Amino acid sequence: MLGWTDATARPQIEIALQHSPSLLVNALGPPPKDVVDTAHDHGILVAALASSPRHAQKHRDIGVDIIVAQGTEAGGHTGEISSVVLWPQVIEAAKPAPVLAAGGIAHGSQIAAAIAMGAEGAWTGSIWLTVAESDMTPLVIEKLLGADSTQTVRSRVLTGKPARQLRTEWTDAWEGPDSPGYLPMPLQFMLVADAFARITRSQNRELTGFPVGQVVGMMNHVRPVRDVMQQLVEEYIEASERLDEVNLR
Amino acid sequence: MLGWTDATARPQIEIALQHSPSLLVNALGPPPKDVVDTAHDHGILVAALASSPRHAQKHRDIGVDIIVAQGTEAGGHTGEISSVVLWPQVIEAAKPAPVLAAGGIAHGSQIAAAIAMGAEGAWTGSIWLTVAESDMTPLVIEKLLGADSTQTVRSRVLTGKPARQLRTEWTDAWEGPDSPGYLPMPLQFMLVADAFARITRSQNRELTGFPVGQVVGMMNHVRPVRDVMQQLVEEYIEASERLDEVNLR
Repeated sequence: MLGWTDATARPQIEIALQHSPSLLVNALGPPPKDVVDTAHDHGILVAALASSPRHAQKHRDIGVDIIVAQGTEAGGHTGEISSVVLWPQVIEAAKPAPVLAAGGIAHGSQIAAAIAMGAEGAWTGSIWLTVAESDMTPLVIEKLLGADSTQTVRSRVLTGKPARQLRTEWTDAWEGPDSPGYLPMPLQFMLVADAFARITRSQNRELTGFPVGQVVGMMNHVRPVRDVMQQLVEEYIEASERLDEVNLR
Repeated sequence: MLGWTDATARPQIEIALQHSPSLLVNALGPPPKDVVDTAHDHGILVAALASSPRHAQKHRDIGVDIIVAQGTEAGGHTGEISSVVLWPQVIEAAKPAPVLAAGGIAHGSQIAAAIAMGAEGAWTGSIWLTVAESDMTPLVIEKLLGADSTQTVRSRVLTGKPARQLRTEWTDAWEGPDSPGYLPMPLQFMLVADAFARITRSQNRELTGFPVGQVVGMMNHVRPVRDVMQQLVEEYIEASERLDEVNLR
């Protein structure tokens, strides 16, 4: 189960450290300072997601090595500021820490754009949900492939904190005028986890959704990871060349 | 007064055509086909704002010459899809029409990013509200300079259609649980126009706002237009050079 509280999250860190990872990444606020220090003691770098320049400064000040600047268009837990507005502000605020650009990335030209804006690299998420190697159910894959970029909603329904996900009749009901409102994290997830699992098992088309970013509108075919990576590289090169060509006009 | 209906908008077009503009730009849906044709008969190019790939195709199909792809982070009337997700999709959908990137642009590196992604140029709005030449009231300028990128809201309060603006006690009240809801355009603006004018005249700090994009967080000093333009150019060059340098590593 996910680590929604300090009591459940800390044992996960201990287990993770035993497997000698090279990077420990934290979402939903700054990691505890002592966890950052412990990771460093083990020679492990720490990254953390930031949805505002203020988050980035907090991360940097407790020793986080890499800041992931994640725009509101991202899937799952996400802030309010869009990537194109957030990235330059976080890059400035995080100095001298390196920044990875996240939120809305499904095309190599977006990675070139992020690098031009001063990011050291990009962080992707949603695009891996519909690869051939994905473990999503066939119905989730089908719904993701069929959705356009307007068909997500940033809602507290899943966890009590705003998370972007596919818009469904279920999220509409929770967001509607008759909604009872949401419980704070971690209670909301405890409240809806069983219902969400039953919806997934039921294969109900109207109710089935999944956390995903606005790039869902750019995810239209199931492809192996290898092909996605190759395409990102080719699109990155094309975008770099396009900027050079325009600048030489 | 603004042209909220066909009856009030058409005379404005007739007046505009008498002044031999080089470009006629339309927001809030496709312009009427006959207006596009009339502009072309006068040798005038037509541009139109698009918040989705579907909008872009509609514009192109009725002969619009230039598509302005405007992300949700923009000020004023705006859609749901963020710039970094929208721009590549509109650029693809609008072909062969050229696309200007809009929504979230306040820094030259964002213009370089848009060009790398395939835009022919950029379209800016909010950043001109706080220039030395601006005709905003001192209180609006002060509030814009002080706001960060989380302090906007996309609300129907002003016109009945979603428009991004500074979040104030007034927008909070309209968005709150006790709100009576909104009238459809053009009725909402007719309902609130007088109140909005009184708020502006009153110089009330809590109620005063203005349509502005999320880049309000990057607008921190009053500068002459000349300095803003110079900085955009310098930042554009730096961003282009950064991408070249990274690619040569």
